[in-house]
Amino acid sequence: MEGTFKRPTNQELLLQEILQEALDLPLSGESANYIPALASINPNQCGIALANLDGEVHVAGDADVPFSIQSVSKIFGLVMAMLRMGDDLWRRVRMEPSGHAFNSIVQLEWEHGIPRNPFINAGAIVVADTLVSHYSASKSALMSFVRGLADNQDIHVNQDIFQSEKMHGSRNAALAYLMKSFANIDADVNDALDHYFYQCSIDMSCRDVARSLGFLANRGVQPHSGDQICSRRDAHRLNAILQTSGMYDQSGEFAFEVGLPAKSGVGGGIVAVVPNYGVICAWSPRLNQYGNSCLGMYMITRLAKKLGLSVY
Amino acid sequence: MEGTFKRPTNQELLLQEILQEALDLPLSGESANYIPALASINPNQCGIALANLDGEVHVAGDADVPFSIQSVSKIFGLVMAMLRMGDDLWRRVRMEPSGHAFNSIVQLEWEHGIPRNPFINAGAIVVADTLVSHYSASKSALMSFVRGLADNQDIHVNQDIFQSEKMHGSRNAALAYLMKSFANIDADVNDALDHYFYQCSIDMSCRDVARSLGFLANRGVQPHSGDQICSRRDAHRLNAILQTSGMYDQSGEFAFEVGLPAKSGVGGGIVAVVPNYGVICAWSPRLNQYGNSCLGMYMITRLAKKLGLSVY
Amino acid sequence: MEGTFKRPTNQELLLQEILQEALDLPLSGESANYIPALASINPNQCGIALANLDGEVHVAGDADVPFSIQSVSKIFGLVMAMLRMGDDLWRRVRMEPSGHAFNSIVQLEWEHGIPRNPFINAGAIVVADTLVSHYSASKSALMSFVRGLADNQDIHVNQDIFQSEKMHGSRNAALAYLMKSFANIDADVNDALDHYFYQCSIDMSCRDVARSLGFLANRGVQPHSGDQICSRRDAHRLNAILQTSGMYDQSGEFAFEVGLPAKSGVGGGIVAVVPNYGVICAWSPRLNQYGNSCLGMYMITRLAKKLGLSVY
Amino acid sequence: MEGTFKRPTNQELLLQEILQEALDLPLSGESANYIPALASINPNQCGIALANLDGEVHVAGDADVPFSIQSVSKIFGLVMAMLRMGDDLWRRVRMEPSGHAFNSIVQLEWEHGIPRNPFINAGAIVVADTLVSHYSASKSALMSFVRGLADNQDIHVNQDIFQSEKMHGSRNAALAYLMKSFANIDADVNDALDHYFYQCSIDMSCRDVARSLGFLANRGVQPHSGDQICSRRDAHRLNAILQTSGMYDQSGEFAFEVGLPAKSGVGGGIVAVVPNYGVICAWSPRLNQYGNSCLGMYMITRLAKKLGLSVY
Repeated sequence: MEGTFKRPTNQELLLQEILQEALDLPLSGESANYIPALASINPNQCGIALANLDGEVHVAGDADVPFSIQSVSKIFGLVMAMLRMGDDLWRRVRMEPSGHAFNSIVQLEWEHGIPRNPFINAGAIVVADTLVSHYSASKSALMSFVRGLADNQDIHVNQDIFQSEKMHGSRNAALAYLMKSFANIDADVNDALDHYFYQCSIDMSCRDVARSLGFLANRGVQPHSGDQICSRRDAHRLNAILQTSGMYDQSGEFAFEVGLPAKSGVGGGIVAVVPNYGVICAWSPRLNQYGNSCLGMYMITRLAKKLGLSVY
Repeated sequence: MEGTFKRPTNQELLLQEILQEALDLPLSGESANYIPALASINPNQCGIALANLDGEVHVAGDADVPFSIQSVSKIFGLVMAMLRMGDDLWRRVRMEPSGHAFNSIVQLEWEHGIPRNPFINAGAIVVADTLVSHYSASKSALMSFVRGLADNQDIHVNQDIFQSEKMHGSRNAALAYLMKSFANIDADVNDALDHYFYQCSIDMSCRDVARSLGFLANRGVQPHSGDQICSRRDAHRLNAILQTSGMYDQSGEFAFEVGLPAKSGVGGGIVAVVPNYGVICAWSPRLNQYGNSCLGMYMITRLAKKLGLSVY
Repeated sequence: MEGTFKRPTNQELLLQEILQEALDLPLSGESANYIPALASINPNQCGIALANLDGEVHVAGDADVPFSIQSVSKIFGLVMAMLRMGDDLWRRVRMEPSGHAFNSIVQLEWEHGIPRNPFINAGAIVVADTLVSHYSASKSALMSFVRGLADNQDIHVNQDIFQSEKMHGSRNAALAYLMKSFANIDADVNDALDHYFYQCSIDMSCRDVARSLGFLANRGVQPHSGDQICSRRDAHRLNAILQTSGMYDQSGEFAFEVGLPAKSGVGGGIVAVVPNYGVICAWSPRLNQYGNSCLGMYMITRLAKKLGLSVY
Repeated sequence: MEGTFKRPTNQELLLQEILQEALDLPLSGESANYIPALASINPNQCGIALANLDGEVHVAGDADVPFSIQSVSKIFGLVMAMLRMGDDLWRRVRMEPSGHAFNSIVQLEWEHGIPRNPFINAGAIVVADTLVSHYSASKSALMSFVRGLADNQDIHVNQDIFQSEKMHGSRNAALAYLMKSFANIDADVNDALDHYFYQCSIDMSCRDVARSLGFLANRGVQPHSGDQICSRRDAHRLNAILQTSGMYDQSGEFAFEVGLPAKSGVGGGIVAVVPNYGVICAWSPRLNQYGNSCLGMYMITRLAKKLGLSVY
């Protein structure tokens, strides 16, 4: 019976159309190459997923290929720390846009070891430090949390990337020791860094990422499970930080052109939250000058425009 | 007949309640005192206005007292420049949050004379420069524009403040000359500064400000007149810049706690845009450490919370 | 009679030998070109003069061609200000090496408008401000002072360069206004800048410069006249500032390789003081990456080495 | 027989007179207190030694009490590295004054991990890195070198201070990791830091320090042994760096007021080189705002003035 054939929805058709537009663009940008394990990824992969609040996920392209989520993982660490620390967290990291590179040590020095927000590296290391200090086994706690959010036990850390990150982590170590000198790292610096690099090395697919963050678009409630992950207020706050600080030094332009809270990673992933609507995750490894995925930016911008998703 | 008596609406009652809460708070903060004309204002005044998309304005307290709008005026200049210059404007000023003081010269130097956004002083001076260069009489063009938006011909520049600003304007002159040295000021530096100081010296009431900016909440259409002031896209973009950069170095926190695009001025005014809902303007001269009105922040935060106005 | 023929001294022979070595080097560097009047100078000119404490001056090459002394003039301004202001001067400008570009505005901001030393532009503008404030006609006072020191009434300001400097002076204006905003400029900013640009535009030959600064090598007493120009202590102090701050961001290297107090200008001149011995001035317009004359550096380094002139 | 009684020389009498003047000054400044082992030193100790080129050392006060030489040790490390590395060293560290705090990370970032000179912490860590990389046992090589220079086998590392330095070394670790991220640290970061902290923890008396550095005043030849420690040229160069960069952010003022190459440490020691004359070492723990010994500065300034020792 033809009843078993599922017709593509309008959203799926739109995703496929936008994916095709992206693939037809002239190639531009390069993959991240600061570690070999990232440089060796096929740079021409491209996928997109849209998770709706009804729990359904529409996809196109390589949306089921796991990729290195890198800085997208900072969201997971931050949610865990907000849940565990409450407002105490905000005495150790601010929530202001930085106006500097994600790994700036200059600003950290000026501001006496208090990172401007949890999405620059220094801020994410402080967050990692709080998790190391508050959990007996912070790495497995993180994996449980992420797998639960994505409703997928088959999410793993990429060991090659994890080892590579640790071997190329001098600059992050500099940030961590500088914060330690201002008494803003509690745990052993190596432990905080170990957690931080571990978190960055998680592999997830577009589908996983989009599903896992549905609660940010849904006032704290995970759409597919009905679980209250965080308070409505904290969901709002997370979106606010994503909006002002999630896209590196292109955050302002992204708000300006797209109007959605979002976070990108140097693995080529970008996740955008559409309050009261859903979550988009796009992935393609080639990066622009700001470290954001070229095709990921293109696809999310197009989708937001076509569907009128701007919060403004 | 009692028919002539107009009962306060729910919104009016709410504004009055919040105003009273604000007035009951212990005094904190000081008025701006870098020029005598601002230091001499009665610091305990306090007002709030909410302009709805139906054209109605609800008010409480000193909402009809004209105050020095100062940096709130940067919105008016920016809208004029966007209309006149189109996307060329964004080659001379970026749209990224700054992460520095509003009058930082350090960042301007690093970024080769291109201000990070139009709401820091350097950016607003570039905007002023474009207006001086594109209008034969930029100051009267500005006043016509503002009066038209507010539908009030009785809006004026405070000459005392204008003269004071010019006499205390060395730092802004330093910003302008530095940009000139990077070829990012076209007009005579003195003319650009003159326009800039003039714009900062406009007096408006909370009612005026809230009414004048209704189009930002209404996809570019002015609610009370039906005029299309700017494109829907530009209204979105203006809101995005307000969100990431409008509240000095408290922009991130304001997005985090309130979730609305907003702009403040050292005269004590704050205007917040609620997309598809309306515009709030609060005023009270005492400023917190970031240069934002203490009671203004309080009232807008309360109102946004009570009415659930966050865009997230 | 052959008695009228004056045989070259050993010093003259040495200067000629070193000049020839310099001229035999492969060409490198470019003349300053930020103003047309400097860019049009024949870049291959080269001269050197050595003024001894007995009043004699030995020369080689284009040592009698007047050139734009530019920042070398900062010495004259500083001596005048030290004589007029005494130790009060050092409340408005420090005597520390800067570690930044000669025209850095960043450092000036950090240090609240107090320039690190009188040889960076900001410091020389403060010095100019004190002269404008303390002399009824500071520019003619300067010319009298310089002509007297050099014992040459035929020293003039190059009007082309003076006008050019004023037209390209936005960055110096930015420095001046920033200092004004910190209350470290007393006179009208335009007057201080006018004096500063005038001073930079003096033309002198190597012979003039070397003769004029003999007192720095002679405990404050001008060798050819016997006049006490400044105290022995102030001569020591001037040499100290020249040593730590006179050669832009190559001051440390110059002390390291040559070991003499010195000052250079973008016109291609360099003057070096040899305490208790004499003063060397070399000139050639092509500049290295630090803004110091390539051949000037070469000749002074060679001469210092051959004669064992290092103070260390 | 009275023949065994040695009459104080004129120099000794002068040292005693100056010491007495210093002790009569009102107390000012505080000892370094960032590690307990330094904070617990009796702050009122005060000594001075003058080593002449004939091998004699004159002393006054606590000149034979060993103190923590701290940054004075950077001279020893630098001499060893210059001898071992030759001019290659100067590709990894510059010789320019810094214009920033001794432990500035901002400047290091701007200059891509190349420290401005070997006397700021970052520079001394690079020097330590070269020693660790070039010696199989760099710490014992250092001790042999220092003991040989001072002709005193009874010079030791203070283990309390060494352990304390390591426990409070986060900021130096941040500097080292930042340089590692710019590929300017070859060895393991921990090994380089270990050597650096060890070197800082040497205890020596004024007599030891003054004797050990005699070669800097004597064209590279150690006065008491006749050994050629380094070339005449390298002795000149070391003095030049001391002059421009040895006294923290008071280097310019020290050159200005005293006119001698010098190095200070937060243990309260200051050593000054008088070319062709001798070496002075003064010690007293209370520090001024720049981290230089208050009484040490006073005594050296007085001595230099009384004896006319300025190189200028």
